[in-house]
Amino acid sequence: MKAERSPAASGPAAAPLTLEGTSVLHQMFRIRRAGLRELNSGRRTEIAREIGDALAGMQRREDGESAAFSILGHKADLMLVHFRAGFEHLARAQAEIAALTIDNYLEPTTSYLSMVEIGLYEASVRLYERLATDGIEAGTPQWRDAVDAALKENREKLAARLWPRIPERRYVCFYPMNKRRGEHRNWYQLPIEERQRLMHDHGMIGRRYAGQVTQIISGSVGFDDWEWGVDLFADDPLVFKKLIYEMRFDESSALYAEFGPFYVGIRLAPDELAKTIADCG
Amino acid sequence: MKAERSPAASGPAAAPLTLEGTSVLHQMFRIRRAGLRELNSGRRTEIAREIGDALAGMQRREDGESAAFSILGHKADLMLVHFRAGFEHLARAQAEIAALTIDNYLEPTTSYLSMVEIGLYEASVRLYERLATDGIEAGTPQWRDAVDAALKENREKLAARLWPRIPERRYVCFYPMNKRRGEHRNWYQLPIEERQRLMHDHGMIGRRYAGQVTQIISGSVGFDDWEWGVDLFADDPLVFKKLIYEMRFDESSALYAEFGPFYVGIRLAPDELAKTIADCG
Amino acid sequence: MKAERSPAASGPAAAPLTLEGTSVLHQMFRIRRAGLRELNSGRRTEIAREIGDALAGMQRREDGESAAFSILGHKADLMLVHFRAGFEHLARAQAEIAALTIDNYLEPTTSYLSMVEIGLYEASVRLYERLATDGIEAGTPQWRDAVDAALKENREKLAARLWPRIPERRYVCFYPMNKRRGEHRNWYQLPIEERQRLMHDHGMIGRRYAGQVTQIISGSVGFDDWEWGVDLFADDPLVFKKLIYEMRFDESSALYAEFGPFYVGIRLAPDELAKTIADCG
Amino acid sequence: MKAERSPAASGPAAAPLTLEGTSVLHQMFRIRRAGLRELNSGRRTEIAREIGDALAGMQRREDGESAAFSILGHKADLMLVHFRAGFEHLARAQAEIAALTIDNYLEPTTSYLSMVEIGLYEASVRLYERLATDGIEAGTPQWRDAVDAALKENREKLAARLWPRIPERRYVCFYPMNKRRGEHRNWYQLPIEERQRLMHDHGMIGRRYAGQVTQIISGSVGFDDWEWGVDLFADDPLVFKKLIYEMRFDESSALYAEFGPFYVGIRLAPDELAKTIADCG
Amino acid sequence: MKAERSPAASGPAAAPLTLEGTSVLHQMFRIRRAGLRELNSGRRTEIAREIGDALAGMQRREDGESAAFSILGHKADLMLVHFRAGFEHLARAQAEIAALTIDNYLEPTTSYLSMVEIGLYEASVRLYERLATDGIEAGTPQWRDAVDAALKENREKLAARLWPRIPERRYVCFYPMNKRRGEHRNWYQLPIEERQRLMHDHGMIGRRYAGQVTQIISGSVGFDDWEWGVDLFADDPLVFKKLIYEMRFDESSALYAEFGPFYVGIRLAPDELAKTIADCG
Repeated sequence: MKAERSPAASGPAAAPLTLEGTSVLHQMFRIRRAGLRELNSGRRTEIAREIGDALAGMQRREDGESAAFSILGHKADLMLVHFRAGFEHLARAQAEIAALTIDNYLEPTTSYLSMVEIGLYEASVRLYERLATDGIEAGTPQWRDAVDAALKENREKLAARLWPRIPERRYVCFYPMNKRRGEHRNWYQLPIEERQRLMHDHGMIGRRYAGQVTQIISGSVGFDDWEWGVDLFADDPLVFKKLIYEMRFDESSALYAEFGPFYVGIRLAPDELAKTIADCG
Repeated sequence: MKAERSPAASGPAAAPLTLEGTSVLHQMFRIRRAGLRELNSGRRTEIAREIGDALAGMQRREDGESAAFSILGHKADLMLVHFRAGFEHLARAQAEIAALTIDNYLEPTTSYLSMVEIGLYEASVRLYERLATDGIEAGTPQWRDAVDAALKENREKLAARLWPRIPERRYVCFYPMNKRRGEHRNWYQLPIEERQRLMHDHGMIGRRYAGQVTQIISGSVGFDDWEWGVDLFADDPLVFKKLIYEMRFDESSALYAEFGPFYVGIRLAPDELAKTIADCG
Repeated sequence: MKAERSPAASGPAAAPLTLEGTSVLHQMFRIRRAGLRELNSGRRTEIAREIGDALAGMQRREDGESAAFSILGHKADLMLVHFRAGFEHLARAQAEIAALTIDNYLEPTTSYLSMVEIGLYEASVRLYERLATDGIEAGTPQWRDAVDAALKENREKLAARLWPRIPERRYVCFYPMNKRRGEHRNWYQLPIEERQRLMHDHGMIGRRYAGQVTQIISGSVGFDDWEWGVDLFADDPLVFKKLIYEMRFDESSALYAEFGPFYVGIRLAPDELAKTIADCG
Repeated sequence: MKAERSPAASGPAAAPLTLEGTSVLHQMFRIRRAGLRELNSGRRTEIAREIGDALAGMQRREDGESAAFSILGHKADLMLVHFRAGFEHLARAQAEIAALTIDNYLEPTTSYLSMVEIGLYEASVRLYERLATDGIEAGTPQWRDAVDAALKENREKLAARLWPRIPERRYVCFYPMNKRRGEHRNWYQLPIEERQRLMHDHGMIGRRYAGQVTQIISGSVGFDDWEWGVDLFADDPLVFKKLIYEMRFDESSALYAEFGPFYVGIRLAPDELAKTIADCG
Repeated sequence: MKAERSPAASGPAAAPLTLEGTSVLHQMFRIRRAGLRELNSGRRTEIAREIGDALAGMQRREDGESAAFSILGHKADLMLVHFRAGFEHLARAQAEIAALTIDNYLEPTTSYLSMVEIGLYEASVRLYERLATDGIEAGTPQWRDAVDAALKENREKLAARLWPRIPERRYVCFYPMNKRRGEHRNWYQLPIEERQRLMHDHGMIGRRYAGQVTQIISGSVGFDDWEWGVDLFADDPLVFKKLIYEMRFDESSALYAEFGPFYVGIRLAPDELAKTIADCG
């Protein structure tokens, strides 16, 4: 991908090198059950089977996969998560859902557009230091070659995390977040070494929950209204609370994190999704 | 529950040990009375009886209980509060309500998802100090064993508060809240001893109102858009004002509390709820 | 009322003693005129008469009174203000309005729940000083007796202001407000003597407008989303602007006041309200 | 008008003397074209003629005048601006619009209530200085007489600006604004001499655009959710951008101005308004 | 255009000279597919062809051009971007869309009104310095002549950028933004030389992406609720993320930029737009 270029600047305020993988679209819907109930049960079953079949067909495809979740609370009844090879594919997934008969009974409440992202803070700091030591100036062809080589190496090494499957856990927790750019506390003004240290400590907390929760971070700068989307997948929802509460005391969250709305849901297999629709009347 | 692990860090910025119990869902609805009025009175009575019966069946169950409240003002006509053994059970409660005929006439205005929580500030400070004195480092197996033992002991001791019944008082006051993470005033950057002192003083105010109000705190970090939900139950609503106003001058609230919207309601027994619906035409 | 207890703390950060009286509910509605116009004129007149009669019956009752206002601008067409003996009575008033046929054509846009409140800053400072001089510690039985006596004395003296009638002026101005709890400017961290001084100066401005405007302050901590509701009643609406603009330069407002939305309306007698409805087609 | 009293305080934090004139109501509407299209063309023409005639009748009356604007963008299709002798007259204008058949097809999106205002900063500073020099204390009868005399003199001198016509320019730009009351930057805490200087410099920018733009400031403290409404009228909309952008660097705006939403529209003569409605099907 | 006047002030807080060109309107719509599905397929095809033809006719006109984009996520289904010679022409474009049959099935979700703008920071600083050196005072006829000459020269030189075509790239990213006017960080209080340096560094980042992305900045001070609108056009959407993320570390963005909502879309040719509508049933 041509866009996978490295930033030209290094120095204290440098952006970290980042890698992008899977394109992600979260779609949240309220289901207009009153409308569905006006249909006879046969028609409703047809509509239910149609979306169930559509989801089954999207669960594992060449260009990605999709999953459905039943959301707790009023924010949505249904969340669809689409992982795809690119935005073109996401647009197609969106169009496929919009073309289903159920679309007449879905009211979109929100959505989120992002790309799976890995921020290479450690590699960036190491590389920038080495280049500085070697007297290679930022933006020169030599500098660029070194950066491209580092990106390539990491892209291969981290391919599985850049192009993940949707984890097969029962619960999901999704929320968007920003790094603060306050008048006094400003993440984007910290030296990269400081940011690297904070991200490292932050990551250590997550690591201790590794067996219990699968975390997928996606970047949304330029795509949606927050800077990152976070998806946590677990079999016990309490782990969401434990992990995020512990992180809140971590310096990087305590001082610099801003959180958007939280969505907690339970995985729906295609037949469960169909049953939810068919049985609502 | 596997997720009930202790945080690995101690030291000044340590998270307090917390215990979680009952899973809680608040559902706020506006009732579409104009729609109900289009039905004949017999049909309306049927629908009213159906939700009345459903609530009666939910009042006391193996896996929890539910209560209904009539809300004052425009934010909702009806608030349902579900206390359950877990999120799976909450999802079922939500589905049961959605499956009632009245669902066609309910417009969800908001909701809140949380778990009853007890923050063990005093025990945490005592324990962390003892472990420090004994030279036991955070995160070591010994440290973990000591923490797990403390959690277990408190979980047993506090079982009744972790798995409470919905208090049988006439009035409820529900609101969500955060601890401030301002650029200058940041709860999550205070030393744990300071937070413990503030929580202690805060608790002393509540204690003086003990006979008049029953308070249930639930944690919602990772579940909903604020960090905690607070439910107050009393027979005289003035006590809500007196208690919360007095607390506002308390250092912990004055400096660090951020409050969401307030919901004040009057308890509806199942037959009162049914009557409200049946009589609306 | 059992809840009318005094706070136990004195000292610089003490809450002032407060007295509560009338329970207040503001209800704002948009009128669905298009729906009313689909009815024939006879039916509309019936509906109009029904709400006119209801308002007439609520104007002066054992347990309080209600008034109607036509609101200027898009925020509402109609504001109903209910003054009642307690929340139970407010709930009944709300139910009575909801039971009218016009309810099918009313869309609630907002509401406000509060209790008429008098903050006894001067008396509190005097009393706390005397008790300190006499060496009587906060929270002791002696302290409590002195406080209760002061409350009782003031409650009797101020009964007319605690249980006011809705003033018979042509214009109303309603708005909710908070005292700021900023990171640097925090009302709830000021010494009580300082707050008393600021409230005194603030009150002096109001006093100069005494003949022109009647002000009723109600407290809503624990009841609604702001801390106070302010109702101003005047025969000339310009006085609202003059009074509030002048107060904005007053230290207590300039530094510590946060204002919610403003509602300005014109009093509707029951027959005027009925005429508004009947003539809308 | 009795309410046109002067503030009693002078000194550094004094409010400036202000004069009020025309009462102003801005009404923004979206037009439900889909509904109008369901009518036959004859009926639509009738409805169009009715609102066209109403506007023609309101263009120049004893008690004021009204104008219609077609708004660019989604915020509204139609903005009506009513200039009247008082709020009673505004209420009547509002009722007249609500009584038109088109009302069934108008969805109010927002509105703004205010009074044309002139802040007498220069006169106030001069007067307060003279009174201080003469040893006349604020609030004394002598002080009051001097203030009333100054108000009377200015009210006569500025009558044309207090009771303006709606300028006959092709474009309008309307927006509400506040003066900042931040924790560090607080307009209402500046000495009046400093505010006078800032307002003077601010005014000098406007003066240079005098030929190109007509500005009408109305005060809304106590009436609506911002402190002032600003209406700019020009034949070339670029002048709005030039003027406001230049002012943004001016100290008074740069440090103290907070801006609400902007509405830009094109004047509609009564027959153009009618044509817009009639032709929409 | 008469309004293209220069600001009269120079000195540290001077506004930069700016040039304005094309008038721009972004219109975002949700498509009411459920309504379109109620039509028979022939009628739907007619409606689809009508908007397709309208767009084809707007793609290249004497007075500007328009483009359609399919938006990813729930914020809109369709974004129309109109570039025109002036606001009068934009109003006509808006009216043309409103007159289409599809208008019955379009729900406007938001919009943005602006003018293509080039801020002449470098030229302004150079000119102001030269004038200062020559002792020519701001606002004098000589000063004005020099400024007008500079504007004229730049207007001719930059005509292609002031009156751009809509770039023929597959992806668009649109977002509005402000420069911060915080209590401590205030763009509008920086000396012009400092702002010039920040804008220069900011521009250097963009320049490195020149081949991959086409950027059009439009100014909206006085026209809409943010100060600028930014349109990025690219063939690979990842470039939006890379560019904006890198810029976020740049001093001018890190300290002074505030961002509104982001809209990402895929270009729809007229026949693709028609197909989208026709096939939705």
